Amino acid sequence: MTHDALGLEGQYLEQDLPLLIQRRGMAVWSNNKVVILDRRKLPLEESFVECTTPDSVATAIEDMVIQGAFSIGITAGFGFALTEPQTLDSYRETAIRLQATRPTGLALKRMLMACLEAAEKALAVGDSPRAKVLELVEGAAATLARQGWRSGARAADLIPDDATILTHCFPDRAYAYMLVELNKRQKNIRVVCSETRPYLQGARLTALCAQQLGFETQVITDGMGGFLMRQKEIDAFVTAADRVCMDGSVCNKIGTYQYALAAYSNGIPYYALRQSGPDVESANESDVQIEYRDGEEILNWRNQRLAPEGVAGLYPAFDVTPPNLVHSIVTDRGVFAPDRIHSYSDTPPFVENAIV
Amino acid sequence: MTHDALGLEGQYLEQDLPLLIQRRGMAVWSNNKVVILDRRKLPLEESFVECTTPDSVATAIEDMVIQGAFSIGITAGFGFALTEPQTLDSYRETAIRLQATRPTGLALKRMLMACLEAAEKALAVGDSPRAKVLELVEGAAATLARQGWRSGARAADLIPDDATILTHCFPDRAYAYMLVELNKRQKNIRVVCSETRPYLQGARLTALCAQQLGFETQVITDGMGGFLMRQKEIDAFVTAADRVCMDGSVCNKIGTYQYALAAYSNGIPYYALRQSGPDVESANESDVQIEYRDGEEILNWRNQRLAPEGVAGLYPAFDVTPPNLVHSIVTDRGVFAPDRIHSYSDTPPFVENAIV
Repeated sequence: MTHDALGLEGQYLEQDLPLLIQRRGMAVWSNNKVVILDRRKLPLEESFVECTTPDSVATAIEDMVIQGAFSIGITAGFGFALTEPQTLDSYRETAIRLQATRPTGLALKRMLMACLEAAEKALAVGDSPRAKVLELVEGAAATLARQGWRSGARAADLIPDDATILTHCFPDRAYAYMLVELNKRQKNIRVVCSETRPYLQGARLTALCAQQLGFETQVITDGMGGFLMRQKEIDAFVTAADRVCMDGSVCNKIGTYQYALAAYSNGIPYYALRQSGPDVESANESDVQIEYRDGEEILNWRNQRLAPEGVAGLYPAFDVTPPNLVHSIVTDRGVFAPDRIHSYSDTPPFVENAIV
Repeated sequence: MTHDALGLEGQYLEQDLPLLIQRRGMAVWSNNKVVILDRRKLPLEESFVECTTPDSVATAIEDMVIQGAFSIGITAGFGFALTEPQTLDSYRETAIRLQATRPTGLALKRMLMACLEAAEKALAVGDSPRAKVLELVEGAAATLARQGWRSGARAADLIPDDATILTHCFPDRAYAYMLVELNKRQKNIRVVCSETRPYLQGARLTALCAQQLGFETQVITDGMGGFLMRQKEIDAFVTAADRVCMDGSVCNKIGTYQYALAAYSNGIPYYALRQSGPDVESANESDVQIEYRDGEEILNWRNQRLAPEGVAGLYPAFDVTPPNLVHSIVTDRGVFAPDRIHSYSDTPPFVENAIV
C-alpha cells in the first residue's frame, strides 16, 4: 500500500500537498525506525530525526521536533511499535514514558491506549504485536488525514473570496487542508500568520504551508493581531483546537484566547478547527489542566540569552477560550455552534472507529 | 552642575536608580559628542554609541539604539546641538533629518521645534547657539526626570501590596520611578514583563529594571498576558503612553490594545503612564497615524532568518487603545479618567514650561 493510497480518498497526490501534510512531513515508519521531520529546523532546512527506541521518540516529542496534538499521537504510536522486548510489561512502560511527554495530551492518550490494547490482544493470540500496532497506527494516520481534509473542506466553505485569515500557531492538518481547498477553489486569500513565540510555529510552519500553496503570506508578532482586527483587516480568525470541552470551550496554543477576545470584540468570526469531536471527559474549562513548560525556553533563543540573569520565564503552553468567544467549531462531522458541540457524538460519523 | 543635582529634587542619587533611568542610561552630552547607551545590547552588555554628527544620532534612533518617546526626544535634542556649521539653514536641515526618524513622534517634534527656536534666537543676538540648545536640552531632561518621578509616584499609589503587575514593552521613566517608589515603600510586588517582539524591550529592559530593584521578575511572550489575566494572576496592567488623545485614547507599543482588552474583560485596571499631558492636536484616534516599520525586522533575529523565503513581515509599531478600555491615565499633574484627560491643561502645572 503506498502512502498516496492511504490518505484522502484520491482527492490529492502526496506531492501536491504542502510538505507538512505529506506523510514524510509528519512521521513515518521505515526499516524499523521512526523517521520524523524536524520541524524545529524548518523552514531553513528539511532534515529528519531517526529514532530506534521509544525513549528517543519521547525525547523528540519533548524537544519539539514534532508538534500538533494529532501528529504527536501518530508519532507516539510509531514510537510505541519500537518497544523491545515485545512483552506486555515493556509495552506498558513505553505507554507511560510516551504519555509523560504531554501529560495533558488527549489524542496521545487515546492513541497509546489503543496501541496497548492492540499489543495485548496480539500477544494473547500469538500474533506479532509490532505488526498489529503498526497496522493500527497506519490506519489511524490515514483516518486522521481524511478527517483533517473533511474539516478543512468544511472550513473552506466558511471563508469568503478576497478574505484575509489570521492564524495563530500551526493549526495542523485541518487548516492546511482548508488552504489546499481554498487554493483548489481558486479563492483569493491573504494569510496572516502570528509568529507564536517561543517556537515560532506560525512564522515557520503556517507561513511555509501558505507560501507553498502560493497565497500572499504575512508574518506578524503575537502582539499585532488585535490591532489588525481593530483595523478591520482580518475577515476570519482560524486556529486548531487541541481540546474542545463539552460546553464548547476551546483549549489551544497560548495566545489564542487574546485573539479570540479581539475577534469577538471586533465582530470577526473565530473558527476553531477540530478534525474530530469534543472530549467527552471534559465538561468545561475546569477539567483542563494547563501544561506549564520550562520557562527557560522563553529566555533563550538558539542558545543566546535574551533576558537578564536573575529573571525567570513563565511558560503556560496553552490557554482556554470560553465558548461565548467562539463562532463555530469545525469538525469532520459538521460545523457546530459551541453550545451544540456536545451533539457531535449523535451526528452521523464521517469515519468509523476513529481513535483520536 | 552635576547630574545628581539635575534630577529629582534630591529624592534619589543617580547610582541608586536602575541603569535605565540614570542619565548615562539614556543619552548624555560629553566632550562634543552624544553618548547613547546601546539598549539593543542590554542586558548582556553595557556599551555606548558615540555620535559626532546629527546624522549619526538620527541613524542611532532609527536603528533602535535608544527607544521611548521622551528618551528619543532628549537624544535628538543633543543630536541637534551637534549641527555644523552653526547656521540657521543647517539647523533647519538637522531638524528635518531628526524628525524623519520617527515621523509620528510628538515629543520629538516639540523638542526639535524648541531647539530650532533656541538656535534661531541665539543666532539673532550673537549668542552661541550650541550652548543655548544644550542648556535647553539639559533643562528638558531634568524636567522630564522630575515629571517621570511624579507620575511614577502617583502610579505607585495605585498599586496595592502583594500585587502582580503586567507590563508591555519598556514603559520608560514613569514606570521605572513607579518601581523605585514601590521599592522605597517596601511593597511586595511581582513584575511580569511581556517580552515585546520584535525587539524584546520587555524581556531585556523592563525585566532589567525590575530585577535591579530586587523584585520577583518574570518574562512571558506577548501571547500569554491574556491567559494570566483570565487566571486572575494579574492585579494591574501598566504601560507607558506614547501619545494620549484628547478623548483619552492611548497610543502605545503594538500589543497594548490586546492586553487592554483582556484587562477590561477580566476586571483588571489598565493604567497608562504619561509623564506629561495629552496631545492637544489629537482629538481622537483618527488623528493618529500608525507608523509601519520594515517587516523584515520581524522575519530575522540577529541575522538569522526565521520565516520562509517568499513570505513578508507586517510591522505596525503602535496601536491605539480606545478610552473605554483605559482605567486611568497617570500624569505628573494627577490621575485622570480617560474622559477627563482633556482637563489636564486646566490643572495646576507640576513643572513650568515643560517642552515635551
